[in-house]
Amino acid sequence: MTLPALKKCDAGPAVAELKTLLGERLSTAAAVREHHGKDVSYHEGASPDAVAFAESTEEVAEIVKICARHAVPVVAFGTGTSLEGHIAALAGGVCIDVSGMKAILEVNQADLDCRVQAGVTRKQLNTYLRDQGLMFPIDPGADASLGGMTATRASGTNAVRYGTMRENVLGLTVVLPDGRIVRTGGRARKSSAGYDLTRLFVGSEGTLGVITEVQLRLYGIPEAIAAAVCSFDSLEGAVDTVIATIQMGVPVARIELLDAVQMDACNRYSSLNYPAQPTLFFEFHGTEQGTREQSEMVGAIAAENGGGEFRWETLAEARNKLWQARHDAYFAALALRPGAGGWPTDVCVPISRLAECIRETQKDIEESGLLAPIVGHVGDGNFHLVYLIDPENAEELARASAHNERMVMRAIAMGGTCTGEHGVGYGKKGFLLAEQGEAVAVMRTLKQALDPQGIMNPGKIFSA
Amino acid sequence: MTLPALKKCDAGPAVAELKTLLGERLSTAAAVREHHGKDVSYHEGASPDAVAFAESTEEVAEIVKICARHAVPVVAFGTGTSLEGHIAALAGGVCIDVSGMKAILEVNQADLDCRVQAGVTRKQLNTYLRDQGLMFPIDPGADASLGGMTATRASGTNAVRYGTMRENVLGLTVVLPDGRIVRTGGRARKSSAGYDLTRLFVGSEGTLGVITEVQLRLYGIPEAIAAAVCSFDSLEGAVDTVIATIQMGVPVARIELLDAVQMDACNRYSSLNYPAQPTLFFEFHGTEQGTREQSEMVGAIAAENGGGEFRWETLAEARNKLWQARHDAYFAALALRPGAGGWPTDVCVPISRLAECIRETQKDIEESGLLAPIVGHVGDGNFHLVYLIDPENAEELARASAHNERMVMRAIAMGGTCTGEHGVGYGKKGFLLAEQGEAVAVMRTLKQALDPQGIMNPGKIFSA
Repeated sequence: MTLPALKKCDAGPAVAELKTLLGERLSTAAAVREHHGKDVSYHEGASPDAVAFAESTEEVAEIVKICARHAVPVVAFGTGTSLEGHIAALAGGVCIDVSGMKAILEVNQADLDCRVQAGVTRKQLNTYLRDQGLMFPIDPGADASLGGMTATRASGTNAVRYGTMRENVLGLTVVLPDGRIVRTGGRARKSSAGYDLTRLFVGSEGTLGVITEVQLRLYGIPEAIAAAVCSFDSLEGAVDTVIATIQMGVPVARIELLDAVQMDACNRYSSLNYPAQPTLFFEFHGTEQGTREQSEMVGAIAAENGGGEFRWETLAEARNKLWQARHDAYFAALALRPGAGGWPTDVCVPISRLAECIRETQKDIEESGLLAPIVGHVGDGNFHLVYLIDPENAEELARASAHNERMVMRAIAMGGTCTGEHGVGYGKKGFLLAEQGEAVAVMRTLKQALDPQGIMNPGKIFSA
Repeated sequence: MTLPALKKCDAGPAVAELKTLLGERLSTAAAVREHHGKDVSYHEGASPDAVAFAESTEEVAEIVKICARHAVPVVAFGTGTSLEGHIAALAGGVCIDVSGMKAILEVNQADLDCRVQAGVTRKQLNTYLRDQGLMFPIDPGADASLGGMTATRASGTNAVRYGTMRENVLGLTVVLPDGRIVRTGGRARKSSAGYDLTRLFVGSEGTLGVITEVQLRLYGIPEAIAAAVCSFDSLEGAVDTVIATIQMGVPVARIELLDAVQMDACNRYSSLNYPAQPTLFFEFHGTEQGTREQSEMVGAIAAENGGGEFRWETLAEARNKLWQARHDAYFAALALRPGAGGWPTDVCVPISRLAECIRETQKDIEESGLLAPIVGHVGDGNFHLVYLIDPENAEELARASAHNERMVMRAIAMGGTCTGEHGVGYGKKGFLLAEQGEAVAVMRTLKQALDPQGIMNPGKIFSA
């Protein structure tokens, strides 16, 4: 997508002050700046004037104070794996890279919670937790930072059972646009104590402050985990299986859909050998007996909907390979068309409309002459596709863009949302307005109140 | 608690305009005003100048516009069952009673959601849903309105499994302080589309707008429900059973604690015949096999902690009697001391501190010479007590107040919160500041942005 035209700031004086504060941890090198202004999406990047590598909440606060004094924009950076142009420095300014803030500050095993710095990634945390029998289940495709996952209200394959970042962030430390440090929420499992500031910052995409610490809910690693793969004659059969499973209240941990194109891509990329058909990946968590019961119930539903045999992956190694393949679906898709660029997008609809929404989207892909495999966290009604586009071909991009617009507007018309888990960035601002209407004016009022200078990640979520 | 001193408004001109708009649905009768300014807590009430009985969102918007034009306070009223003085019209003004807005607007059985007007009560909704095999599990003691439950971020006995209003409100219709009508959220199960306005209004206690419609998540009525009662030699044994159950990840639906005093009170009030000992009420939801497995696991934990036999209540009638007794615990407590007034309060702590917090609180009750039975939604770390106070005895009230302060500060010191589910109202404003610190300043900034005249339920949650 073309960059929104924002007036560039004069960052010079702020950068000079930051250099004094940070020394070598303040970079103005072109390659560093470019890397920090472009995420992994198809959206055009925009380099900040400088990148500050912060090491503590207090240091982030000092950096923000300097930027605030000079009215210079601030963009927070975790791993740069966002998908809607979130980190593009549209008005220039300073990128605060928190990837060095990697301390796991506390793990409270008895209370199933922990506190981490914003730069800790989900894999780092899970590796650390494993020996204690604990896990943090939210898993976007990338090994994203927990600060970034909080900022975009990320989710992933486990959300159908464990919820998203919305349900799993208990509290935050945030540096406000004026440099004040504020702690929100707490360790109690529930609270009626005042406004829910935690959830206001979850999903605010760096536009209200910089998240520096996250208090997270944890879970015990289940006694039993069973994964299975089931191929279907038709996409409808697969989706109807999902709908019936959710409606019956079976507490599945994961249900992932791959359409025939995507399954074929994953077979090639990840050396799997499933039929190149619409496919569901399942995972069941619980006791031995409970997972057996769940899988029998779902097996019966699948059989009624044209599903084949369940192929069980009982060994941890095979299971990990399966889910790694699922997480690599994006790269598998890219490999379908060497040299092509990938443009991932997502929507989420009420589950009763899911089959219809995917079917119409797929038909529209064919009619548009596009290559765009579909994968989905279908237990939540959420699905993704990635357009595989020749970067030299403007007409093809325009066709993908038109398709994306039709898909998003279709999802909204079905009572859904323009993004289930990728966020708005600058790529979906127009769709947010179409979806939320007057509510966007309320969001703007909140933004204006907390960030009157408009320095926090300007041009994202909505226009000023 | 003594009423905070707020300057009374001059509501005359607004009331005259409202009379023209609403006719007989605008009351200035003293008895009506008094009823609408006093909740069921021990906190002193304050009557509004008039009560407007609204019938639609549009009408609420008209009423708010008139009040806004005259800078007259607005207090929303559902069933008046709040517990921290939430509905006291501290500066006078107009109470908007939405209890007549009782329409269930839609039930989407396939998507497990519904939309209701704010005056629908939880029991009304569940009666309506039962034939469709659906339920809405959030159950504060009173048969509260869903608008009020949203406004106070209520929960109840099922929260350990199903979450609170925070997790179960999908979207809202809200009349803003200037009379604009805004819809937040949507029907998709997850979304990354912009700021989470829904959760900003959940728990805002009428200080940011008037909630007129609520979109709720629903659940299928479980295939099997099993309830059991287990008595313990000691409070510690009961609490340790809860802690181990949660830590093992057993998906219990309800775990309620009653201390010996409360159990005795419930036996008398609800004609039960359980031992007057520390007692846990359990409920298990799932398949036949799943509930059996859960109950066996918990039974084993209880036995290790000095618990007696599980007394099973398998018939729906006996189960309903059990839970009605639990919901009537407040009235049972009141009956322990005829003529006494009841002052309910609640805190919530990380579960690892629960036994210690309850033990110290109980010891402090004894040392303070107070009568205050303890009940708790202990699976969440949340417990309540009700001080039974001679209304003529100021010294006794002061002793209870001092005890409450010690208990709340103890909970905060343990990483907990000043209120798990009752809210702040005007009764816990000081404690909110002690708990949340600088975050309260952020809350004030948001309030000022959305309600610059300060007309929405003034004097609640924090001082202006």
